Amino acid sequence: MLRLSLLTWPVVASLLSLVALCPAPHAEAQPTLLAKVEGDPLPSWNDTAPKKAILDFVEKVTKEDSPDFVPVPERIAVFDNDGTLWCEQPIYTQFAFALDRVKALAPKHPEWKDKQPFKAVLEGDHKALAEAGEKGLVEILLATHTGMTIEEFETTVAEWIKTAQHPRFKRPYTECVYQPMLEVLAYLRANGFKTFIVSGGTTDFMRPWTERVYGVPPEQVVGTTFKTKYVVEEGKSAVVIEPAVDLIDDKAGKPVGIAKFIGRRPIMAFGNSDGDFEMLEYTTTSKGARFGLYVHHTDAEREYAYDRKSHVGKLDKGLDEAPKRGWVVASIKDDWKAVFPPKSSPK
Amino acid sequence: MLRLSLLTWPVVASLLSLVALCPAPHAEAQPTLLAKVEGDPLPSWNDTAPKKAILDFVEKVTKEDSPDFVPVPERIAVFDNDGTLWCEQPIYTQFAFALDRVKALAPKHPEWKDKQPFKAVLEGDHKALAEAGEKGLVEILLATHTGMTIEEFETTVAEWIKTAQHPRFKRPYTECVYQPMLEVLAYLRANGFKTFIVSGGTTDFMRPWTERVYGVPPEQVVGTTFKTKYVVEEGKSAVVIEPAVDLIDDKAGKPVGIAKFIGRRPIMAFGNSDGDFEMLEYTTTSKGARFGLYVHHTDAEREYAYDRKSHVGKLDKGLDEAPKRGWVVASIKDDWKAVFPPKSSPK
Repeated sequence: MLRLSLLTWPVVASLLSLVALCPAPHAEAQPTLLAKVEGDPLPSWNDTAPKKAILDFVEKVTKEDSPDFVPVPERIAVFDNDGTLWCEQPIYTQFAFALDRVKALAPKHPEWKDKQPFKAVLEGDHKALAEAGEKGLVEILLATHTGMTIEEFETTVAEWIKTAQHPRFKRPYTECVYQPMLEVLAYLRANGFKTFIVSGGTTDFMRPWTERVYGVPPEQVVGTTFKTKYVVEEGKSAVVIEPAVDLIDDKAGKPVGIAKFIGRRPIMAFGNSDGDFEMLEYTTTSKGARFGLYVHHTDAEREYAYDRKSHVGKLDKGLDEAPKRGWVVASIKDDWKAVFPPKSSPK
Repeated sequence: MLRLSLLTWPVVASLLSLVALCPAPHAEAQPTLLAKVEGDPLPSWNDTAPKKAILDFVEKVTKEDSPDFVPVPERIAVFDNDGTLWCEQPIYTQFAFALDRVKALAPKHPEWKDKQPFKAVLEGDHKALAEAGEKGLVEILLATHTGMTIEEFETTVAEWIKTAQHPRFKRPYTECVYQPMLEVLAYLRANGFKTFIVSGGTTDFMRPWTERVYGVPPEQVVGTTFKTKYVVEEGKSAVVIEPAVDLIDDKAGKPVGIAKFIGRRPIMAFGNSDGDFEMLEYTTTSKGARFGLYVHHTDAEREYAYDRKSHVGKLDKGLDEAPKRGWVVASIKDDWKAVFPPKSSPK
């Protein structure tokens, strides 16, 4: 395993912001892995405070005679992805993808055999990759995520995600999603909420599979974006991804992304790191009933345990501020009965 | 009436692109003015070819056993706003708003009495305003559309649009919408389509009223956007509009906006000008059943007649290309039984 633990979204974000202008298959319709909403809508949550807080909040904003009633169109809930809806350890899934892409693209780039940081990726040379530093990582991202049409990129992601497996759990990444959060998504939608993903990962990397996995359609996915341009060639049209960043959807970029793409202030926000702080703050510092929740990674046995000192998904300021701001902190160890969905039976 | 006929979206777009960085009430839940979808779903359309083309297309993509069947999540339809969903003559409604805002803000800007182009607006001095030229118009836009929170701006729009009236039709602008197109919006939604607005006007100007008027919620409005930033002061958070353009959602900017905000290629597109050409092209140059329609303004008596030589809503290239590309051209005079919704009875 390459050691990329230093590669956090804020680091990537600051890297990407330095990058100046250089030179899809549709998601499937049938959401799978979604929890059933019969009887207990949150069966994978223990009967502890966080579950009660979610149920109480939804009840008070959906009961017509409640002083906190919120009309259906304003029931907007936003979810971070990495570490909130799916596992982000030991490295972000999107970086596992980027590294695999370097290997897959290598035959078309014979020069990579002798050129860092690609050489390091191809040889599994952790030391050389570390030495390539931030500049090297940006090169990897640009080489694997830009310079093609969005539809080409999305096809590549869709194919990769079908077969790639999490190194520890030996399951597709799309099964390393949190069953309790799938239940929250389904429960909120059953109560008239529109659910959005607001993630530091790139939009194009998420859209090919979020509808199938989370029931969140592409048009409800807000993420980091590259600049694009419209091209027409021989009667065919496409939107091409350019090697320059448009929006970095992390930290203060999350409220910006929400205002731009959604255009309403959410009433519920779910995150797991300091990168989500501003999203929870923006959601909860306005009039009316508001709800913020942090997933706290406390379970090294069933998943991972990390917070204040982690390079991936650092949760430090958020842990201090949550109690002051009335945000719920859900401990995976204490509050989740299950972490991942049951394994599907072999076909 | 100030003569602003030269102010087309492309002109505004090119102006805005020159601007470098210098220094909401929620939409209502109940769509009004929406057509009933019982019996004939398009009662305000004459029984001519365009109506038949719309009905035939929707039938073939929604019938399960049709070779052109399209699953519900992929039924994306995009609509230009100015000149396609509501009247854009004699000047864009958004510019009528901008001029009214200059007048409303004048007491807070005593210097405007002696400063062009504001002086010209305040004095109704058409000649001086024309002399202020493009630079002057940009100054007006920035002074009236940026430098406040999105929620403040949206409140201003919502209040203005309640009372402002179209100069010729003497009705609120939100009643100078096209009844036949309201029927198309409702008909498509009844058939599982998700309807989006993709307009050269600014997103923040449309979102406060599109849900009430068109049944299109804020999160399905794609438009020209300004850059924004997140600010927190004394425990309150907001997203502030900065005086710099982010996306110019016109011409080739429309496919870019669609790919960015919607993330799926639409299967139906409705426009009325060359500014919509690339949107129709992007929609119709891909596999599967595709539909493009231009509203052709041919009715000087009931609305306006303009096309190839108009400064607002110029339709020239589109008229030539439509027949070659199989796009429908709907003539207001010949194909629309009614133009605007019936006047509501006085309260």
